[in-house]
Amino acid sequence: MGEFDLIARYFKRPPPLAAAAQVTLGVGDDCALLQPRPGQQWAVSTDLLIEGRHFLSTVAPDRLGHKALAVNLSDLAACGAQPVAYTLALSLPSVDEAWLAAFAQGLHALADAHGIALVGGDTTRGPLAIGITVMGEVPPGQALLRSGAKAGDELWVSGHLGDARLALEVFRGSLSVPLPVWELARQRMEQPTPRVALGLALRGVASAAADVSDGLCGDLGHILAASGVGAVIDAADAIETIASRGVWMGASGRLDSNLSANPPLPAEWQWLDWVLNGGDDYELVFTAPSALTEAVRLAAAAAGTPVRRIGRIQAESGLWLRERDGVLTRLPTRGFDHFA
Amino acid sequence: MGEFDLIARYFKRPPPLAAAAQVTLGVGDDCALLQPRPGQQWAVSTDLLIEGRHFLSTVAPDRLGHKALAVNLSDLAACGAQPVAYTLALSLPSVDEAWLAAFAQGLHALADAHGIALVGGDTTRGPLAIGITVMGEVPPGQALLRSGAKAGDELWVSGHLGDARLALEVFRGSLSVPLPVWELARQRMEQPTPRVALGLALRGVASAAADVSDGLCGDLGHILAASGVGAVIDAADAIETIASRGVWMGASGRLDSNLSANPPLPAEWQWLDWVLNGGDDYELVFTAPSALTEAVRLAAAAAGTPVRRIGRIQAESGLWLRERDGVLTRLPTRGFDHFA
Repeated sequence: MGEFDLIARYFKRPPPLAAAAQVTLGVGDDCALLQPRPGQQWAVSTDLLIEGRHFLSTVAPDRLGHKALAVNLSDLAACGAQPVAYTLALSLPSVDEAWLAAFAQGLHALADAHGIALVGGDTTRGPLAIGITVMGEVPPGQALLRSGAKAGDELWVSGHLGDARLALEVFRGSLSVPLPVWELARQRMEQPTPRVALGLALRGVASAAADVSDGLCGDLGHILAASGVGAVIDAADAIETIASRGVWMGASGRLDSNLSANPPLPAEWQWLDWVLNGGDDYELVFTAPSALTEAVRLAAAAAGTPVRRIGRIQAESGLWLRERDGVLTRLPTRGFDHFA
Repeated sequence: MGEFDLIARYFKRPPPLAAAAQVTLGVGDDCALLQPRPGQQWAVSTDLLIEGRHFLSTVAPDRLGHKALAVNLSDLAACGAQPVAYTLALSLPSVDEAWLAAFAQGLHALADAHGIALVGGDTTRGPLAIGITVMGEVPPGQALLRSGAKAGDELWVSGHLGDARLALEVFRGSLSVPLPVWELARQRMEQPTPRVALGLALRGVASAAADVSDGLCGDLGHILAASGVGAVIDAADAIETIASRGVWMGASGRLDSNLSANPPLPAEWQWLDWVLNGGDDYELVFTAPSALTEAVRLAAAAAGTPVRRIGRIQAESGLWLRERDGVLTRLPTRGFDHFA
């Protein structure tokens, strides 16, 4: 099967209904043609995933297809943009039709769920790499930026941080967990849920937002730097781990060396490190005026996404952790860095 | 130097004046924000370049920066779109500041020449790979598509085909050429000129267009398939090689095993093969009604780009070569295929 047959078979398809009006011409010409709706701005983001860096070679291809698009949708979510279209650049060591079919299935399923159209791409032979560029719409002035946090704002995160890191530690063999914990954590690492609905619901509510991909401290650090503020995270509020979600006990089914029915719980400081610096979470970290606490909760409920208030923005610079005993510790704000 | 310093130092800069009105927010947030001009359509294309596949490891980084953007601009050119913005995804084996500075210089120089703004990107450690997505504007209904060719239309190409292939053959050691030929051919391979001005000038004139990246026969084949027509190429008109441009003789300067002062000229069939199937040309192949011959020549003159009429579109399917003796030969329309 050649390059063009491959594209035709796995990647050429009509746009989802939600995006059809904006997709004048999809895959198959030198360019796609998009028709922006009058008055809308376009939010654009790009991510490149490399085997061994961003995903393990063992990941199932349908999960990889999901994740490659999910991490890009997460950037649109962080801006409060409505997904419209994306392009896919795919470098493959060889043509494996079963792999391609599964990859495309995972990719298209998530695309359909968000009404985003694949409008163009490029395939080449090479090391396994996936480059996606997403485009979404947002009304002028309503995009959530990193630069809008103000002293006194409350600090929020969506969902659950640290799960993907937990899975990575099990993969690395440094941790033993019960089977249900493993299944949940692995699913969170391999099939993250982009918080698009929450991002849309937070338009006009959140004062700043970013997606958590390189670890909470690092990504929150971008908000603090862009906004010229600092923040205090309350340790007691920040830790809501898999253990506290009630799945640590009760393993069943196949157990291997990294899975056991009743392993010791990691220490609290360990959980906290994964929450603060885990990475690969694809949750949103955002700020909102304290007068809008209820509006945040309503937005989260409307989006069907759990949110948690974990601290507060302050004028004094730096990121600080208030531990259970009240002691403040300065946190580094460098997230995961591919070159550091 | 970390990932974010790297981006700030080499890739964060104000948009060129031509694109400033459409770039609301550039590099540095989760997404860039673009403000399309009212009524315009957006043309979008993406290309992924992998070391050893799309470029040689010996290429100078400034030329690589130029080429990575040029091949994408070539897609906008083929659609008659005005470049506005692009994203860059860069996978690097290591941080080499001299390399990065030169790569960025080549990239930015071409971007500035076309008024296109770098609005976002992603950098990661991995095998050297460059993914670019370009966005441009075109008034609705004016984009040049592959599907518009009609029987009786004249068939045209821009510039000179086969030069990049000639350079590749010298690199491979299969050919010896005079030094001036080598310098010209290498420059054409490493720093192709995207025919953006010609694409814009051909709006309303050309009936179909594509860029020649995988070889003339392959890319013309896409036009023929999309338009449901065939074509005849006149060999006598198609061959305009480096030799016929008067630079074969007169080598001077350093000569190595692949360069000599007066090597034998390759046979005509060999030139013809490079013209028809060479690849990496980044010229335009396009069709226009025969009543618009003068309009094509005026558009080319306005764009400062040479064009040549090399054949004619016909209702009968297939791509044919009319040789100097009048004999018609069927040509395969499969261009370079990474997986064939």
